[in-house]
Amino acid sequence: MIKVGIVGGTGYTGVELLRLLAGHPLAEIAVITSREEAGRPVADLYPNLRGHVDIAFSEPDPQQLQACDVVFFATPHNVAMKLVPELLDRGTRIIDLSADFRIKDHTLWSQWYGEPHLCPDLLSEAVYGLPEIYRDDVRTARLVACPGCYPTTVQLGFLPLLENRLANLTDLIANVASGVSGAGRQAKVDNLYAEIGDSYKAYAVAGHRHLPEIEQGLAIMAGESVKLTFVPHLLPIIRGIHSTLYATLLDRSVDLQSLYEARFADEPFVDVLPAGSHPQTRSVKGSNSCRIAVHRPQDGNKAVILVVEDNLVKGASGQAIQNMNLMFDINETAGLAAPAMMP
Amino acid sequence: MIKVGIVGGTGYTGVELLRLLAGHPLAEIAVITSREEAGRPVADLYPNLRGHVDIAFSEPDPQQLQACDVVFFATPHNVAMKLVPELLDRGTRIIDLSADFRIKDHTLWSQWYGEPHLCPDLLSEAVYGLPEIYRDDVRTARLVACPGCYPTTVQLGFLPLLENRLANLTDLIANVASGVSGAGRQAKVDNLYAEIGDSYKAYAVAGHRHLPEIEQGLAIMAGESVKLTFVPHLLPIIRGIHSTLYATLLDRSVDLQSLYEARFADEPFVDVLPAGSHPQTRSVKGSNSCRIAVHRPQDGNKAVILVVEDNLVKGASGQAIQNMNLMFDINETAGLAAPAMMP
Amino acid sequence: MIKVGIVGGTGYTGVELLRLLAGHPLAEIAVITSREEAGRPVADLYPNLRGHVDIAFSEPDPQQLQACDVVFFATPHNVAMKLVPELLDRGTRIIDLSADFRIKDHTLWSQWYGEPHLCPDLLSEAVYGLPEIYRDDVRTARLVACPGCYPTTVQLGFLPLLENRLANLTDLIANVASGVSGAGRQAKVDNLYAEIGDSYKAYAVAGHRHLPEIEQGLAIMAGESVKLTFVPHLLPIIRGIHSTLYATLLDRSVDLQSLYEARFADEPFVDVLPAGSHPQTRSVKGSNSCRIAVHRPQDGNKAVILVVEDNLVKGASGQAIQNMNLMFDINETAGLAAPAMMP
Amino acid sequence: MIKVGIVGGTGYTGVELLRLLAGHPLAEIAVITSREEAGRPVADLYPNLRGHVDIAFSEPDPQQLQACDVVFFATPHNVAMKLVPELLDRGTRIIDLSADFRIKDHTLWSQWYGEPHLCPDLLSEAVYGLPEIYRDDVRTARLVACPGCYPTTVQLGFLPLLENRLANLTDLIANVASGVSGAGRQAKVDNLYAEIGDSYKAYAVAGHRHLPEIEQGLAIMAGESVKLTFVPHLLPIIRGIHSTLYATLLDRSVDLQSLYEARFADEPFVDVLPAGSHPQTRSVKGSNSCRIAVHRPQDGNKAVILVVEDNLVKGASGQAIQNMNLMFDINETAGLAAPAMMP
Repeated sequence: MIKVGIVGGTGYTGVELLRLLAGHPLAEIAVITSREEAGRPVADLYPNLRGHVDIAFSEPDPQQLQACDVVFFATPHNVAMKLVPELLDRGTRIIDLSADFRIKDHTLWSQWYGEPHLCPDLLSEAVYGLPEIYRDDVRTARLVACPGCYPTTVQLGFLPLLENRLANLTDLIANVASGVSGAGRQAKVDNLYAEIGDSYKAYAVAGHRHLPEIEQGLAIMAGESVKLTFVPHLLPIIRGIHSTLYATLLDRSVDLQSLYEARFADEPFVDVLPAGSHPQTRSVKGSNSCRIAVHRPQDGNKAVILVVEDNLVKGASGQAIQNMNLMFDINETAGLAAPAMMP
Repeated sequence: MIKVGIVGGTGYTGVELLRLLAGHPLAEIAVITSREEAGRPVADLYPNLRGHVDIAFSEPDPQQLQACDVVFFATPHNVAMKLVPELLDRGTRIIDLSADFRIKDHTLWSQWYGEPHLCPDLLSEAVYGLPEIYRDDVRTARLVACPGCYPTTVQLGFLPLLENRLANLTDLIANVASGVSGAGRQAKVDNLYAEIGDSYKAYAVAGHRHLPEIEQGLAIMAGESVKLTFVPHLLPIIRGIHSTLYATLLDRSVDLQSLYEARFADEPFVDVLPAGSHPQTRSVKGSNSCRIAVHRPQDGNKAVILVVEDNLVKGASGQAIQNMNLMFDINETAGLAAPAMMP
Repeated sequence: MIKVGIVGGTGYTGVELLRLLAGHPLAEIAVITSREEAGRPVADLYPNLRGHVDIAFSEPDPQQLQACDVVFFATPHNVAMKLVPELLDRGTRIIDLSADFRIKDHTLWSQWYGEPHLCPDLLSEAVYGLPEIYRDDVRTARLVACPGCYPTTVQLGFLPLLENRLANLTDLIANVASGVSGAGRQAKVDNLYAEIGDSYKAYAVAGHRHLPEIEQGLAIMAGESVKLTFVPHLLPIIRGIHSTLYATLLDRSVDLQSLYEARFADEPFVDVLPAGSHPQTRSVKGSNSCRIAVHRPQDGNKAVILVVEDNLVKGASGQAIQNMNLMFDINETAGLAAPAMMP
Repeated sequence: MIKVGIVGGTGYTGVELLRLLAGHPLAEIAVITSREEAGRPVADLYPNLRGHVDIAFSEPDPQQLQACDVVFFATPHNVAMKLVPELLDRGTRIIDLSADFRIKDHTLWSQWYGEPHLCPDLLSEAVYGLPEIYRDDVRTARLVACPGCYPTTVQLGFLPLLENRLANLTDLIANVASGVSGAGRQAKVDNLYAEIGDSYKAYAVAGHRHLPEIEQGLAIMAGESVKLTFVPHLLPIIRGIHSTLYATLLDRSVDLQSLYEARFADEPFVDVLPAGSHPQTRSVKGSNSCRIAVHRPQDGNKAVILVVEDNLVKGASGQAIQNMNLMFDINETAGLAAPAMMP
C-alpha cells in the first residue's frame, strides 16, 4: 500500500482527495493535517466520509509526513514551498496541488503570486503533472506540480492544434467558466449563495493567475511563444469547468475530428466526443474524465473547441492521484474508474 | 457473474442502475430495453457512461430477459405487472422499482394507481425490499418490490419508535421534500428549470400515492393501523430527499439517541448521526446511505426525526442493488461502497 | 415627501429598502449609514441601483438621523436599542427591522439574544408591526418592531384558526423553510454557494430565536399560551419562505376556506388561494404579498396551512414600508404595488 | 390609455408583458389570446398576477385585436406573419417579439426558419426595434420587429466599435450565455431542471438562428459585411444573458471607455460601467437595463466587451414596451423604471 499524507485537508481539494483515496485499492491515508481543525475527525467536517475515513485532522508534523511515501499539498499558494525542500531531502515524494511549482520562471511566478519564491532551484526539477503530455517525466518525478483547473482544460483543448502548428499563435482565445468550488472553501461574501445563485459574470478579465501558467504550457507545445486572451467566468454550479476555445486555423482543410481522436486515442481520461457534440459539465461530475468536442462553424477558419472537466477531479485531486499512480507504477486508472454522476 | 437485465432503462432510475452496476464486481449488464431508444447506445443518451457501459438499448425481448439471472424493472407504474408473471414462470428473479407490487391490498392499489391489478395473486408473494426490516425474506424472494423513495425515509425514520410502541399512532406527521429527479425524465412543463428553479412548493397535499404504501408499512411495524399526515414538497435540487418526521411520544423519558443507534448499529446503509446533528441531503448524494438525526425540542413530547437519502440510490436503484446482493448471497455492500460526493 | 434615514444599509434588508423606496412616490432617502462602507456610493455596492439611488453610505450621524421623519434600522440584533431612545426623544419615528423590540418580556429577550436589554421600558410601547393584526396601533406608533421573516408567515397562517379557538393549542407545528438571503450578507462558510447549492437541511431544531417571538404572537391571538414545535430548514434559493403549518382541529366541520377568505378579504397583501392550491415561493418573489392555501387532507382532523412570502419583502423591508405608509397616513400600498417576478 | 392586445400570451414573454404592463401608467391590456388556455384567467396560470391582471385568455378574434391600438405578438416563429397583414390593413400597429420580421432578406429568413415567408413585402417596411439605433424609425413605424435576446446584447456591445470602424470585421467573436427562460415554456426533456441544473454547456455551435440577424445588424453598423463566430451556451439560471465579445482592434490607442460612455450617454437603458467592472446578470434581473463593461486585457489588441441584460425584459418584453412608448410618443421609460432585483 502507498502510504499517503495530505497537508491542508480542510478545503475542497483536500476532501476530494479523501473521497477518491477512500476507494483506491492500493493507497492508505496515513495522515491529514490542518492547524485549525487539529483533533477533529475528518468525517465530522465532511459527513459524506462517515464510515469511509476514520482519521482525524492533526497538526502538521514533519516526522509523520516524512514517514509517508508521498505527500499531497492541498494548501493555498505560497505554503508548499516552505515545506517541500525538507520533505524531498528525506526522500518523500511530493504532489503539489497548489501553484507553487507550476511556473518555471521564478520572476514571473513572483509577479503573479506576490512573494519571492523560496526554492527557485526546485522549479526546474518539478514535473508539470499533465500526464497527457509529461507522462514519462511524471513516472520518475520526486516533485510533481499539478496543473491548475483552467490550465488543464485549455492545454488539453489546444494541444493537437498547437503541437501540429495548425493555428495562428497570436490569436488564441480561451473563454472559460468555472463552478464555485474552484474558489475554495473560504468565508467570502463574493462566494455566498445569495451572491452567486441565479447569476453569472466574468471576472479577472484584466489578468488571472492561470494565464502565465497556460501561456507557458502552450509555448512548450508550439515551440514558440503564444498570445492568449483568457477570460474566466463564474458559474452558479458547484463543480465543473467548461472551456470554449477559439483558434484561427492556418489551413481550413485539416480534419479536426480525426486529429483530436488520434491524439487522445490512448488516453484513459480524455474522451473526444463524436462530431457535432456539445459536452455538458455534468457528464464529468465526480469523474476524472475530460470530454472534448471540436467544431468549425460555417466551414470557416475558426476552430471552436469545447472542453469540460470536473475542476475538483481532473482539474485537481483526481489528476493528482493519476500522477501518484504513475509515480508508483500502478494502473494509471486505479481509484479513478467510477463514472460521473448524472443526473 | 450475475447476469442482469433492465427493462425501461432510459429514465433516471435506469441510468442510475447502470452507473452503479458499472462498478459492481459481480454483476454484468446483459440487456437493457427501451422501445423508444432501441438501437441507440446507452452512452449516447447518458454520456457519463462513455467508456463504462458499451451496450445499446434494445426492444424488449422475453427470450433475452429470461436468460438473465435477475431483471430490474425501472418502468413507470402499471408496466411490470404485465411482464413479471411470465418471467417468474421461467425462473428469472425480479426486482421491481415501480409501485406495482408494493401494496398488498389490490383494491387499495387500484384506487391509487387507476387500473385493476393484473396479477393480484403475486402481491402476497412479493417481498417488500426494505432490507432493514425484511432482509431475510429478501434473500429467498423471487419477486422484490422496492419501496418508493419517500417511503424508504419515512419508514426508516419511524421504525424504532413504532416497533417499540413509543409514539401516538394517530398523530404521525411526515413533512417530506424531494429533489426533482424524483419526478422522472418526462417532458412536463411543471418540471422545467424555469418553473422549478429558485422556488419551492408543497404538492399533492390532498393525497400522494406514497401515502398508502407508507401507512401499510407503519402499520406492520406498529402491529396496528396508524394515521399519517403526509405532505410532500418539491425542492430545487436534482437528487435528495429530506424527511422531517413528527411524533408525539407516549413517554418523554425515552432516550431517543440510544434507541436509534442501537436499532441501526448493524445496518451498513443507515447512519445515525451524533445528537444535535442536522443531516444535509448532499451528505448522501450518489451514495446508498440514509442518515438520520433525532431531536426532542425544548424537552417536550414531540420527537423530530430528520432523515436524508439520495432518492435515486437508497430511494431507488441503490436499494434495488442492495436487494440483488441479498438475493444472490453476496456481500450486501458490493457495488455500493463509494462515499457520497461533497461538495 | 417623507424624509427617510436608514441605519445599516449594506445588508440585504438595507438594499431591499432602497430598491422599494426608489419607486415610492412619497418618500425620499435622505441618509443611509454604514461604518464600513462610508463614502462609497450605494450603487457601487449594489449595481442594480445605478441610475436609481444616487447617495453614498455615510458614518452614522445623530444629527442627520434626527432630521429624518423616520429612521429604519436594518442592523443586526442588539444595535438598534443603543440608538433608538435618543432618536425617539428628538421626535424621530423608528421602524426597526431587527429583533430588538419584538419581544415584550425583556428577560425572555435576553435569554435568546444574549445581552441585557438596554431600554426595556420601550418594549411595552413598541408596536409589533404586523398590520393584519395591529394596523391601528401602527398608525400612531413612535416605534414599530417589524416581525421576523418566519414569524410573519407563521402568525398569518395560524391567525384565523387561533383567534377563533378552532385548534388544539398544545399541538401546533410549523415546518418552515427559507431561502439563504435570510441569513444575511455575512462572510460565513456555511452560506457559501458550494455549501448550500443542490442541498437541503433542517437547522436549529433545538431552538431558533424566532420561536419565542412566534409563541408570544400566537398566545395573544389565542388569549392563552400555546405550544409550538418549530423546525426551520434552509433552501437553496435566494428569496422566499414557505411555511407548512399543522394544527389539530377541535371541530372538523369548520369550513377552512371560507374562514380564511373572510378573515383576509380586506387585506391588500394577504391572498388566500382557491381551494386545493399549492403556493410557490416564486409567486411572491420581489413582492409584498403573502399567499396562503388551506387543506384538510383525507378529511381528517389536521389542518395543513401553506404560506409563502418573500422574506426580504413581506418578511422584512416591504412590511417595514407598509408600516411606514400607515404611520404617515398614506396609501398602505404606496411603493409596494408591483407584482412578483415570475418566472 | 393605449389599448393593448397580446397574441400568444401563455409563454414567458407573454407573462412578462403582462407583469410590466400591469404597472404601466398609460396602457391597458384589452385582450390576450391563447387557443389552449382560452377561458382561463391569466392569474390562474401565473399567480404572481393575482390582484394585478384580471382578464382571462381568449380565442384569437380579429375583431377584438383590430380594436386595439397596438398588438404584441408573443408567439413562436412563423405565426405573426399569418395575422399581421390584415391587422395592419385595419390600422392596428404591431410589435412582433418573434423572428418573423427581423431579417430583411426573405430567402435568408426561409433558410433559417424553414418556411417560405408569407408577406415578404412587409420585411422592408418593418422597423428593427432596437431604439439605440433605430429610435426615429420606431416612432413612426406601423410594424416593429423586436430584436432577439442575444442579438440585442451583441449589437449593443459591438455598436461603438463598428460604427467607428475600429475593429477587424472578419474576426468578431460572440461567446454568449443565456438563462433557460430563453428556451420558452415548452415541455422538452432538454429543459428539465434535472437536465439543466448544476450543469453548463454550449449548444448550436454549428449555427444558431440569431446569427444571420446579428450579422445583418452588424453589417449595417459597419457599412459592409462582417464575419461573426457566434457560440451560445445554456446557463443554469432562469433569466439573464451575458455576452462576452471579442474584437481585434485596428488601433490599440483608442480609449474604449470614453468611446462607450459617449455613445450611450443619452440612452436610458444602456449603462456603461466604470473601467475594470464585470457586470453580473443579476444586476439587471427584472429590469430593462443593459449593462456594459469594456476591457483591453494586457494592453493588447483585443477588446473584450461584457454585456448583460435580462433576456425577458431588454431582450424581449421590456424592449417591446420601450418601442411601444416611442410609437405612441410617451415617455420612453414609462412602465420600465423599476430597478433590478438584487439579491
